[in-house]
Amino acid sequence: MNKTSLLELLAAVQSGTLTPAAATERLASLPFEDLGHARIDHHRTLRTGLPEVIYAQGKSPEQTTEIFTRMAATGTDVLATRADAPTAQMVLAALPAAIYHPQGRAITLRQSTPSEPQGHIAVLTAGTSDQLIAEEAAITAELFNTKVTRLYDIGVAGIHRLLAVREQLTQANAVIVCAGMEGALPSVVGGLVGVPVIAVPTSVGYGASFDGAAALLGMLNSCSPNVTVVKIDNGVGAAYTAVLIARAAATRS
Amino acid sequence: MNKTSLLELLAAVQSGTLTPAAATERLASLPFEDLGHARIDHHRTLRTGLPEVIYAQGKSPEQTTEIFTRMAATGTDVLATRADAPTAQMVLAALPAAIYHPQGRAITLRQSTPSEPQGHIAVLTAGTSDQLIAEEAAITAELFNTKVTRLYDIGVAGIHRLLAVREQLTQANAVIVCAGMEGALPSVVGGLVGVPVIAVPTSVGYGASFDGAAALLGMLNSCSPNVTVVKIDNGVGAAYTAVLIARAAATRS
Amino acid sequence: MNKTSLLELLAAVQSGTLTPAAATERLASLPFEDLGHARIDHHRTLRTGLPEVIYAQGKSPEQTTEIFTRMAATGTDVLATRADAPTAQMVLAALPAAIYHPQGRAITLRQSTPSEPQGHIAVLTAGTSDQLIAEEAAITAELFNTKVTRLYDIGVAGIHRLLAVREQLTQANAVIVCAGMEGALPSVVGGLVGVPVIAVPTSVGYGASFDGAAALLGMLNSCSPNVTVVKIDNGVGAAYTAVLIARAAATRS
Amino acid sequence: MNKTSLLELLAAVQSGTLTPAAATERLASLPFEDLGHARIDHHRTLRTGLPEVIYAQGKSPEQTTEIFTRMAATGTDVLATRADAPTAQMVLAALPAAIYHPQGRAITLRQSTPSEPQGHIAVLTAGTSDQLIAEEAAITAELFNTKVTRLYDIGVAGIHRLLAVREQLTQANAVIVCAGMEGALPSVVGGLVGVPVIAVPTSVGYGASFDGAAALLGMLNSCSPNVTVVKIDNGVGAAYTAVLIARAAATRS
Amino acid sequence: MNKTSLLELLAAVQSGTLTPAAATERLASLPFEDLGHARIDHHRTLRTGLPEVIYAQGKSPEQTTEIFTRMAATGTDVLATRADAPTAQMVLAALPAAIYHPQGRAITLRQSTPSEPQGHIAVLTAGTSDQLIAEEAAITAELFNTKVTRLYDIGVAGIHRLLAVREQLTQANAVIVCAGMEGALPSVVGGLVGVPVIAVPTSVGYGASFDGAAALLGMLNSCSPNVTVVKIDNGVGAAYTAVLIARAAATRS
Amino acid sequence: MNKTSLLELLAAVQSGTLTPAAATERLASLPFEDLGHARIDHHRTLRTGLPEVIYAQGKSPEQTTEIFTRMAATGTDVLATRADAPTAQMVLAALPAAIYHPQGRAITLRQSTPSEPQGHIAVLTAGTSDQLIAEEAAITAELFNTKVTRLYDIGVAGIHRLLAVREQLTQANAVIVCAGMEGALPSVVGGLVGVPVIAVPTSVGYGASFDGAAALLGMLNSCSPNVTVVKIDNGVGAAYTAVLIARAAATRS
Amino acid sequence: MNKTSLLELLAAVQSGTLTPAAATERLASLPFEDLGHARIDHHRTLRTGLPEVIYAQGKSPEQTTEIFTRMAATGTDVLATRADAPTAQMVLAALPAAIYHPQGRAITLRQSTPSEPQGHIAVLTAGTSDQLIAEEAAITAELFNTKVTRLYDIGVAGIHRLLAVREQLTQANAVIVCAGMEGALPSVVGGLVGVPVIAVPTSVGYGASFDGAAALLGMLNSCSPNVTVVKIDNGVGAAYTAVLIARAAATRS
Amino acid sequence: MNKTSLLELLAAVQSGTLTPAAATERLASLPFEDLGHARIDHHRTLRTGLPEVIYAQGKSPEQTTEIFTRMAATGTDVLATRADAPTAQMVLAALPAAIYHPQGRAITLRQSTPSEPQGHIAVLTAGTSDQLIAEEAAITAELFNTKVTRLYDIGVAGIHRLLAVREQLTQANAVIVCAGMEGALPSVVGGLVGVPVIAVPTSVGYGASFDGAAALLGMLNSCSPNVTVVKIDNGVGAAYTAVLIARAAATRS
Repeated sequence: MNKTSLLELLAAVQSGTLTPAAATERLASLPFEDLGHARIDHHRTLRTGLPEVIYAQGKSPEQTTEIFTRMAATGTDVLATRADAPTAQMVLAALPAAIYHPQGRAITLRQSTPSEPQGHIAVLTAGTSDQLIAEEAAITAELFNTKVTRLYDIGVAGIHRLLAVREQLTQANAVIVCAGMEGALPSVVGGLVGVPVIAVPTSVGYGASFDGAAALLGMLNSCSPNVTVVKIDNGVGAAYTAVLIARAAATRS
Repeated sequence: MNKTSLLELLAAVQSGTLTPAAATERLASLPFEDLGHARIDHHRTLRTGLPEVIYAQGKSPEQTTEIFTRMAATGTDVLATRADAPTAQMVLAALPAAIYHPQGRAITLRQSTPSEPQGHIAVLTAGTSDQLIAEEAAITAELFNTKVTRLYDIGVAGIHRLLAVREQLTQANAVIVCAGMEGALPSVVGGLVGVPVIAVPTSVGYGASFDGAAALLGMLNSCSPNVTVVKIDNGVGAAYTAVLIARAAATRS
Repeated sequence: MNKTSLLELLAAVQSGTLTPAAATERLASLPFEDLGHARIDHHRTLRTGLPEVIYAQGKSPEQTTEIFTRMAATGTDVLATRADAPTAQMVLAALPAAIYHPQGRAITLRQSTPSEPQGHIAVLTAGTSDQLIAEEAAITAELFNTKVTRLYDIGVAGIHRLLAVREQLTQANAVIVCAGMEGALPSVVGGLVGVPVIAVPTSVGYGASFDGAAALLGMLNSCSPNVTVVKIDNGVGAAYTAVLIARAAATRS
Repeated sequence: MNKTSLLELLAAVQSGTLTPAAATERLASLPFEDLGHARIDHHRTLRTGLPEVIYAQGKSPEQTTEIFTRMAATGTDVLATRADAPTAQMVLAALPAAIYHPQGRAITLRQSTPSEPQGHIAVLTAGTSDQLIAEEAAITAELFNTKVTRLYDIGVAGIHRLLAVREQLTQANAVIVCAGMEGALPSVVGGLVGVPVIAVPTSVGYGASFDGAAALLGMLNSCSPNVTVVKIDNGVGAAYTAVLIARAAATRS
Repeated sequence: MNKTSLLELLAAVQSGTLTPAAATERLASLPFEDLGHARIDHHRTLRTGLPEVIYAQGKSPEQTTEIFTRMAATGTDVLATRADAPTAQMVLAALPAAIYHPQGRAITLRQSTPSEPQGHIAVLTAGTSDQLIAEEAAITAELFNTKVTRLYDIGVAGIHRLLAVREQLTQANAVIVCAGMEGALPSVVGGLVGVPVIAVPTSVGYGASFDGAAALLGMLNSCSPNVTVVKIDNGVGAAYTAVLIARAAATRS
Repeated sequence: MNKTSLLELLAAVQSGTLTPAAATERLASLPFEDLGHARIDHHRTLRTGLPEVIYAQGKSPEQTTEIFTRMAATGTDVLATRADAPTAQMVLAALPAAIYHPQGRAITLRQSTPSEPQGHIAVLTAGTSDQLIAEEAAITAELFNTKVTRLYDIGVAGIHRLLAVREQLTQANAVIVCAGMEGALPSVVGGLVGVPVIAVPTSVGYGASFDGAAALLGMLNSCSPNVTVVKIDNGVGAAYTAVLIARAAATRS
Repeated sequence: MNKTSLLELLAAVQSGTLTPAAATERLASLPFEDLGHARIDHHRTLRTGLPEVIYAQGKSPEQTTEIFTRMAATGTDVLATRADAPTAQMVLAALPAAIYHPQGRAITLRQSTPSEPQGHIAVLTAGTSDQLIAEEAAITAELFNTKVTRLYDIGVAGIHRLLAVREQLTQANAVIVCAGMEGALPSVVGGLVGVPVIAVPTSVGYGASFDGAAALLGMLNSCSPNVTVVKIDNGVGAAYTAVLIARAAATRS
Repeated sequence: MNKTSLLELLAAVQSGTLTPAAATERLASLPFEDLGHARIDHHRTLRTGLPEVIYAQGKSPEQTTEIFTRMAATGTDVLATRADAPTAQMVLAALPAAIYHPQGRAITLRQSTPSEPQGHIAVLTAGTSDQLIAEEAAITAELFNTKVTRLYDIGVAGIHRLLAVREQLTQANAVIVCAGMEGALPSVVGGLVGVPVIAVPTSVGYGASFDGAAALLGMLNSCSPNVTVVKIDNGVGAAYTAVLIARAAATRS
């Protein structure tokens, strides 16, 4: 049932061809979900303004290109993550305005009118190998119209590197920290800032890192109370939440 | 919004004080869930006829007794599982018609009129220690008006014990198999019958059983294709599905 | 000992050349298994009508083709799962009546006379990536003469998609739900229907999905009591049990 | 070295009793951490306004009372979590203005002047057994001057219960979702709201819940991108982050 | 069907009241298992001569005493493992000839006529804490009429202790090695002897022993090819296999 | 120090050029290990008669060929396991008398004079995919001069297949059982025979088999007390122990 | 064979009653280990000077007292760890010179003449709850005559606390770091010092600490290359190695 | 801020252009970390003299070559580990004085003046397959100017091999032991020497070694108190700590 059929039903009540009681019965079992479907999605987009994300890994270049093109046709900004070079090549051939960011394996297409960034986040990495995931987060946040300060390779074994960027950290509305191995950086960062820290364990490491599980456990057990965690290598998820926080804070002052 | 208020709205349309378009707007955003709540629950009860189950573990005797009494007041059959003796004593003091089954740690109260059992299931155990869980399943199924054949202590290390009950097995509409340790019995049973086998790993064992996880893994990897699995010690869950199957089959011939 | 030799033995008893006591001795130690072998298999096929399934993964195209051809020669319907394109090509070259279903990696050969479907199941997926396993289940069920309603990509993060298909769900005799990541869909579906729900965890996901183990755990812990579980990516196993349930229910009304 | 001694050092430079070069030496190796200590803590408190939290579990009633009393003497609000009744009794004897919240095992002492709540969060539970952790979160947030809407027992097996509170959900600046067993609720909630969802796995369940690990894995693998996770039963940690988000958003409009 | 009914059936064939064909049909589906039951059990006891074992843990003193007494009534030797003092007291009150071995938590009752031991095994422990399990193995083997050499507390951190007993080791037909912590002893022993080594991981240790799982893994990965493994703390199982080996070897020379 | 130098030392004592006290000192600190080295190895080979085994996996064809050739030069029988075709080709080019067994990935070279087999073992598999490991065991045992009865594809889902070979099983001195998936076969076999059963979990399976870990756990938890276990896919290790048992038993009667 | 019997053998050679060849045979198989036993132990004690340690947990007060008293009788220093108050009371009753350290659950008895400490270690904890293990390490090291600097409660969430003690850290020859939860402190410490850091994971934490396994994993994955790890709560083991390092360094300058 | 700018600030105070109070403010918030940065790094290099290590795995040959060349330009010794042949080829083309060690996958460039080795370590392996990791450790230590004794293939299944090298072991200041499979060698070595033993689990093994996790667990549970552990395959980390110990001990006598 859609709005048209609902209007018809109500017109039948108005015209007397359907009694209120009978209409009640039908409405009680109406497929409200179809109405709900459109409504919920619309509300959600209005509220968050965040475009959907295409997860390109495991999809063929053709599949990703088709989905990307179809979404672009609606006029929204489009983002594909975990995209390799052949996929990017095919998407860019179809949509020359799209941009490939190989350092974060992401393809972006901005169709919205650029505006003043809403909010400000910092993205940190413990080591250079965590950069791939950090860039995925940073590029996502930038496409979502958030200012990003990148602070890479400031692992805890050289703690002075972190202390040196403390001032920059304290200006962000939210901080994303990407780290593999023992995943200790979010705890130290959490103690230096007064905003939410979103920890992203990365699959960086060997020997007992178990593909990021050790970092994940370390972050979950953080002794800093302002740390929450997303799953291993989930840069885009961390960005999503960080952007929501930054937007909320952006118009504060 | 309930049926009364819906009727008022539709009456307003009929009387012309509300246009169909305005009513459409209000209906599109109506709190359908309240209607839906009652409807879904009602449909579900009608369809399944299965009373809800009280999980008594972790509840005080007072809490269980209160919930049990409140449910009993609606006139339905009532079942509490994982009930210890003090809990049973308090429930039976409040509801003398209730029955305590210590061998399955269950309290039942039958308020529906007894009828011909709908369907027939078999409940097997590999060892005597699995009996607690098997009884939970059997008592649940019997309260749900299903005939139960109990076949206990027929572990695979003495395979003749299983072969001896094969005829009895083949008369059931569904078979529940409770086993700890290596959890091998469901696979062998699955090869002997042509009906669904529901495997219940039990926390019986020591040394490398890891509280039933070994049996759970064994059952999930069963080489018999008609085996599905519930979580460790979940006798009541196995009974729930087995009863649904038995009822479907009951009126077949 | 086969039927012929058994007849000879009994004829010897009848003719008096063998006493009943001597025959008893011989029969008590007869290799009943050989008889049993044929008998059990025969009974089982008669009862379930379900053809055996060839698991093609890890077999060479030649091996699968040989087994497929040999089974086809017996006149039964034949099913091979996890078959890649080269395998399918070789099987179809040998048996032109066979059909390859690339979306479910299955090869089917129907040799039985088509009849009215016995029972009706629904197959759901949470995401598009779960479709491979869902199709394996759906194709299996269809070959086993069961009606299948496919409802794909209705993950819980957009719950309205599930509500929109609720009516279709309630018409099935059993529901198969394929989901990766957190594996939450079976619990929600279980609350909407009054029939058994068979949950299939899929190896879809990354980061903390551990190749489907997270979804498997989620499904085992389902708060809906009518959910049972098969192992990760086991579409054919879910179909097997669902078909048994659907058949039992088919002739109910 | 504190501000006083630093002033003295600089005065000595000004007066000429200390050369700039000698002062440089001393300052380069000064225990800046002591300054830093005070400064960081001070900045942090000013920025977040969040009092420290006493984790009472594993501490004797005497120990908790001593720490609680010492912190109260500084004039701040004080919070102790995981406090049993004997501990509460001893703390309240020492500080009659403190309040014990047995349903959340927390002791609070408000010494700050009450003001208009800054921001608004919702706290949900999937089942009644998750309430202990949810209350820990709610009480923490309320002490931190945040408005809390409690929405308990709305597990996904009865999805209409969640749909019924959707409007209330959408008014919160952040949502905390506590769930055990399969931990599916955060994913569904995440799809209904446009704010950050903080998932708290609880140790509720049995059989394959592994003391909350199954729920933890489920939440980490959530298909809703606005979900982040804290460790099992960490209600206070979830509240900490939710309060930071709510405050940021509070002054937005 | 038992022998009597089988005789009747064959008599019916002999007398002509049942045709061979009809009898074949009935025999093909006869419950041979009942016959098989008795036969298999009887063969097995004759072949192995090993009495059954009562696992007393998780049973009440009354239950263990009842089973023990019932088994004793058949005249066989009886063994109960994991028996605590109250259980032993009750069993010995009922059967004064029974003996309690507190150092191995076992109760034995020898009713067979003592004979020359059949075969010889050695039982080793790495530490003094492994002695409980080692004694369970040793007492079991002795009741099964096998000579046992006990060699305790010869852990690999003081390798000279093992070298000192090398001669004694080489006289055994099989060696049982009980070890917790890293479980290294079986590998070293395996390199010194030319007979099967049965490794028993014990739940001794802390910190990363995970209740014996570390020792279990170590033993499974032994670099000595003559090592096989039983589950954690399974002294009786190790003894069972060692006794079978020792008996086979006993009459060799 | 070798025998020669020991003789010289003792001759010096005899001739009086070395006092007994001085000789005692020197002998107390002699490098006994060198003597021990030769002695132990010699004793061990004499006792077991089992040639060493080359594990070819992870070695280049050149490396394996070099080791194989060097061992062959000592005149003993030689065995290489996990050898692929290129390795076999190179070894056979160097040693034309060697034989490649592709079905067990093994290369054997028999140089000892064939004799009557010492003892008899049975090797079983649950499925056809376990055959690779079973053949590794069987070929190893045969090279070690043991009679092998192969009984393949007798999984527990068709239990009659196992019952049909029961007589053959009972003639073996030891039984090796290879099984993947749920690893249930050893328990059933253990209940049918009175000799040691050596269980070999295989990495066969998918979905929740975790590369054989599920089968390993199942076998460790076997309810048959005569089952011991080796690590996953360790056919050669199982054969080693089975051969030792079979030899011990061979000369019994 | 002891020195006496060896002297007799050599005297027999000298006197001509035993030929050198016969003596060689006997010596080649002599139980050299008994000699070796004494020699190795003696060398080891001379070299390390470290007394053995009694692990009191799991031992009765009587058992611990007996072992403690027996060791004390040899005149060495004695240490018992994991000793509760009743055990300490009994030991001190027997040996009034012994001292109980309840904060580290250790009993020490110093019988050696006090001397200048050899070397200097620092013992750190991340939180106050780690103190029990840290004290076990510190008391052990002090009994072994090593200077200990205790630096407690300097977790990484307040990094300034660590920076404030940096000077003290750099004076130690080795550093022991005890931490639970995420176990991040050793990595930060490792970056600040140029000596070995021994990390001790503690079982402090909840929710996802898995009794210290998360901290253990974090420490193993440390990004500081001078960190090695002992098992969970193993304070005494960390002290043992730290003392060996400190002693080696003590006489350096 | 560096020393120059600090001097300027203090000069301004001296000259009166900056008040002490204003200078205090600026100093309290000065970027002390920059000073700290240089100081810490400088101190650390002076103290340890250990060059940084490039982890080449996961880096392209170009990336490794660039980092290697840049570090070489500072005049220090340079080490890259986990370098494959193409990487080595490119580095050596750029820096002809560099040396590739394929047996340890390491590239070294010595630019410091060779001196007398400081200290002496032993590096052991249990099997030949552990050699890759052992060589990584040995080459690292040698570049760090430490004498290395290599003792390979002395696994515990042939314990005489270890006893034969005991004298060599006791001359080392620290011992590195590399072992896969059950990881038992460090415990035995730990009992023979009085210096720290650093255990390196290797990913050697199959079947239940879980890529080195079994060896890791075994080593953590070592019954020798002088054993500490690094993560799986971490030869360079073990060398780093061993070198620090050896240097401390080097000048002792």
